[in-house]
Amino acid sequence: MPGSAIPLGPEPQYEKVVSGYQTFHSPEPFECEWGGILPELNLAWESWGELSPERDNAILLHTGLSASSHARSQKQNQNPGWWEEIVGPGLAIDTNRYYVICTNLIGGCYGSTGPSSTDPITGNPYATDFPILTVRDMVSAQLLLLDHLGIDTLYASVGASLGGMQSLMIASLAPARVQRLASISAAACSHPQSIAMRFVQRQAVMADPDWNEGRYYGRSFPHRGLRVAREMGTLTYRSGPEWMERFGRKRAKNEVPRLDEDFQVESYLAYQGDKFCLQYDPNSYLYISKAMDLFDIAGQGDASGISSEEAPEPHLRAIKATALIIGVKSDILFPVWQQRELARLLEESEIAVTYVELDSPYGHDTFLIEVDQVGAALRGLLAS
Amino acid sequence: MPGSAIPLGPEPQYEKVVSGYQTFHSPEPFECEWGGILPELNLAWESWGELSPERDNAILLHTGLSASSHARSQKQNQNPGWWEEIVGPGLAIDTNRYYVICTNLIGGCYGSTGPSSTDPITGNPYATDFPILTVRDMVSAQLLLLDHLGIDTLYASVGASLGGMQSLMIASLAPARVQRLASISAAACSHPQSIAMRFVQRQAVMADPDWNEGRYYGRSFPHRGLRVAREMGTLTYRSGPEWMERFGRKRAKNEVPRLDEDFQVESYLAYQGDKFCLQYDPNSYLYISKAMDLFDIAGQGDASGISSEEAPEPHLRAIKATALIIGVKSDILFPVWQQRELARLLEESEIAVTYVELDSPYGHDTFLIEVDQVGAALRGLLAS
Repeated sequence: MPGSAIPLGPEPQYEKVVSGYQTFHSPEPFECEWGGILPELNLAWESWGELSPERDNAILLHTGLSASSHARSQKQNQNPGWWEEIVGPGLAIDTNRYYVICTNLIGGCYGSTGPSSTDPITGNPYATDFPILTVRDMVSAQLLLLDHLGIDTLYASVGASLGGMQSLMIASLAPARVQRLASISAAACSHPQSIAMRFVQRQAVMADPDWNEGRYYGRSFPHRGLRVAREMGTLTYRSGPEWMERFGRKRAKNEVPRLDEDFQVESYLAYQGDKFCLQYDPNSYLYISKAMDLFDIAGQGDASGISSEEAPEPHLRAIKATALIIGVKSDILFPVWQQRELARLLEESEIAVTYVELDSPYGHDTFLIEVDQVGAALRGLLAS
Repeated sequence: MPGSAIPLGPEPQYEKVVSGYQTFHSPEPFECEWGGILPELNLAWESWGELSPERDNAILLHTGLSASSHARSQKQNQNPGWWEEIVGPGLAIDTNRYYVICTNLIGGCYGSTGPSSTDPITGNPYATDFPILTVRDMVSAQLLLLDHLGIDTLYASVGASLGGMQSLMIASLAPARVQRLASISAAACSHPQSIAMRFVQRQAVMADPDWNEGRYYGRSFPHRGLRVAREMGTLTYRSGPEWMERFGRKRAKNEVPRLDEDFQVESYLAYQGDKFCLQYDPNSYLYISKAMDLFDIAGQGDASGISSEEAPEPHLRAIKATALIIGVKSDILFPVWQQRELARLLEESEIAVTYVELDSPYGHDTFLIEVDQVGAALRGLLAS
């Protein structure tokens, strides 16, 4: 319903966002890291290229919070994907050579089991009975899919943002199964300011009376709250330098100012918020953003000082893969000191690591935009 | 009602926040910069020290968005003020030597005319019929008070954040009446990222169904929306380095994580949000934050390039006062490049300017905390 007001009644049509995926069904109970058991698990995924007879050319892509498995167009869904210029024949992640898999996050709303899925025990959506999720849980589900596909070893694991956390996690959790990893605009842990940024977004969703403790399925969706949350998220994904250039102080209309949308940058944020409401389940937003906050793979974030006995399990130092870490100077959500720290921690653990720092004005979203620079770094990793 | 849940019914008791002020009443219609006329005007103010017989020792303090006129304790209100360690006998702003005035913002809810005031024409609160306000309007109201007090010339004009904008504005609007100005953690204009940060806060208030287009007086106040807005505001006032040290990744309780308050930094934000709801009128928040967005005293912010014919009126270059500009490296709301730019613009206009840059971890709120460093710079200005 582009251009129209946000529907407060009907449920978003997530299937319009992602389609043409395959679904791996695991009938076994799936135990989550913080307790809580999912009686069964669905994992939605897409792939490009061919698995070699030796099964040694698979690359696993991990998504960020809101992206789907649709990294690239394919026969069953010909819409352009979010990494259309990175993944494909002859591109940095060359589908003529590699078998590329991208999964939809568990906890999400794009075909994998999440809060909007039906709990087979109750017959109702899980809603907020869904267990607290972690990045480790997300990766454990991916490993089940790899087992199912008979892929013992990944040629590479690649992701940005939350996907970069997953990339570190899978290489730590299953070191023998990951030969190369790329972690872009991610970190060894979420620092308190980025936790705070996501907390306020969750609060915006939960402050909407339509959220109703998460039990809004079949009723009014908390679109107002999710819109504010996404507006705020957008603020953390992009950056000031880009907006100075793109919007400056230009107002949308040269009339008397108003309390609502007025400056062009405001219309941009409102558009991003509106669009997202039709594409994403509010409870998924809560669960997945929380998983990012809980991520800590090196015990670096606790200012009280974590001892090696208490270090998180699995720990970064378990990694055997050759690593590529990419940081972006204008990122305010995962500031560049975090990628520098991550590269240093890997080096200290005697892991072969290449660190690339990009001077782009696009902030946290750079990996979606500066495809030449990101692609060049990825080519380097895959050639290693 | 500290510690209890936010009351969704009753109105906040603003008089508990500020009391013991004087009120200047102007019976004349007050015309606002963007049109709109207030039939009459109240301006609440406090003072410390004595006006000299020559009436040449007055210092005008300007507040930020949420502070009241209560910069320091005084007979009628003995609670500590927000600059208790800066303003007082023998302190940087020495009340043994200077007559110090601090006003409550028009548009606010601390005794000066604002959206919660009764419109004498209708007998109802102005609510969102209140006209769009600007920093120039705020300063015009202060000039009426100075006229009333018979103060032709200010020894100095001092403010931080929005107060720093007012300090620049009064020195531009009435150059002959301001001898010295200090502008702390402010800017020549609001840049698009800080506009965006405030826009999303306003959206949070306006997304609350209780906001009801601003007509909530005598009904349920939009406390949920204002709480989210203030949580987000707090994020922009403080900074990552401080939070790394203060909170790290410590969780409030060592139990299973939850979607709501969990990490200590989250409890801190929630506390700030809750407290504010009992102290501030949501419509005042909208109007005053909008005035900050509209501020542009040098035509610097428009990337499309403003010609000198279109330059804002009044312009920075009208200033005659000796200027002190203070910037803080960790400020994300008014980043330090803006104070550097401001100092440069003043210098280019041949205004005597001292620029001081503080390397504090407290971000935008530094002026409330690093009182020794801020005080020393202010002493320098006042001795000049």
